[in-house]
Amino acid sequence: MASRISVLTRAKTALEDITNRVGEAVRRSGVDEGICHIYVPHTTAGVTINEHADPDVGRDILAKLEALVPARGNYRHVEGNADGHIKASLVGSSQAVPVEKGRLALGRWQGIFLCEFDGPRDRTVVVQVIPSAATRASQLLERESGQP
Amino acid sequence: MASRISVLTRAKTALEDITNRVGEAVRRSGVDEGICHIYVPHTTAGVTINEHADPDVGRDILAKLEALVPARGNYRHVEGNADGHIKASLVGSSQAVPVEKGRLALGRWQGIFLCEFDGPRDRTVVVQVIPSAATRASQLLERESGQP
Amino acid sequence: MASRISVLTRAKTALEDITNRVGEAVRRSGVDEGICHIYVPHTTAGVTINEHADPDVGRDILAKLEALVPARGNYRHVEGNADGHIKASLVGSSQAVPVEKGRLALGRWQGIFLCEFDGPRDRTVVVQVIPSAATRASQLLERESGQP
Repeated sequence: MASRISVLTRAKTALEDITNRVGEAVRRSGVDEGICHIYVPHTTAGVTINEHADPDVGRDILAKLEALVPARGNYRHVEGNADGHIKASLVGSSQAVPVEKGRLALGRWQGIFLCEFDGPRDRTVVVQVIPSAATRASQLLERESGQP
Repeated sequence: MASRISVLTRAKTALEDITNRVGEAVRRSGVDEGICHIYVPHTTAGVTINEHADPDVGRDILAKLEALVPARGNYRHVEGNADGHIKASLVGSSQAVPVEKGRLALGRWQGIFLCEFDGPRDRTVVVQVIPSAATRASQLLERESGQP
Repeated sequence: MASRISVLTRAKTALEDITNRVGEAVRRSGVDEGICHIYVPHTTAGVTINEHADPDVGRDILAKLEALVPARGNYRHVEGNADGHIKASLVGSSQAVPVEKGRLALGRWQGIFLCEFDGPRDRTVVVQVIPSAATRASQLLERESGQP
């Protein structure tokens, strides 16, 4: 079953590190091997994977997105957050990370970030873990062997 | 099995709302819980998820992409559509949306769009729905219980 | 099980065509129908799908990314590769391609590329193939019928 993570974002634009909470969702799923999908059901937020050792990396990402897609510009959308929508489409609404041995197979420096582009707000992240065939087969055989 | 959706795009660049047709593909798949993959097998088109209540959001996305990657520029590719290829890589060729209770778990304002960057043309979108373990286990147990 | 592909990148920024090697990983997986996930566990590299007939397309993509996110800029991250991190988030760390009849269901002109944004380096690409329900059911029924 999909898990939901609630994130209170801190500013108009922010990268919020959700790596540990996604990792917990993977553990709760009981999936040993497969794929973890991280999905943001919002239109002015996204999800990205990047370095989480140095917070300056996130600041550089946000600053460059702001330079390319400034908050104030010649936009048609009248709600004043057109830049947030455009940034969301550049970064994307979903990411997928392999799961191996029950854990996210992230690279050494990688973290998972909710990207806020029109905050501060309460946001939700949906995590869905899909097992690979091997996992499924063994789960099913276990389940069956438990049933006389 | 994967479904295919045909989309006739209307202009050189356009966002075509395919939300309902992807939703139909999910229903036809019979998957109750899992992930829906939306894939564009083209190199000058992409897929994005963003607001579909106000069409001005899509116009702003296309206008900003055009400002960042103009159709006429100093490109090497001789076919005259280098901008379309670059825009496709910025937006991406695939998106994945969770499926819950047999439906796309989109956010309230989200729609799924084919992004045309070198139209008008006939385009194809591939939809592949992957069930989560719970769904699979129950399907298999049903199937088995139906076989003496 | 996930496969790993090693790629030695040739330059500071480069698109390395890994289509054939991803295709081999799909064949080795034995999956007939499903989804192939291509994941880059690095923070200054990404993965994209685009034309691989004309290498000028890749050059145009890299040149435009360099124009939008120049290597030398006013960045906070002190390691000198802030541009590589930003480009990675624009392109994305993962892509997913449908698998049909045991093969990647790529479009006619599509290839899969590792995007190097801080090379030359040794990079790793993780390939995880997830079968669809139909494949799984038939594999499990085969497996069971082989067990008395």
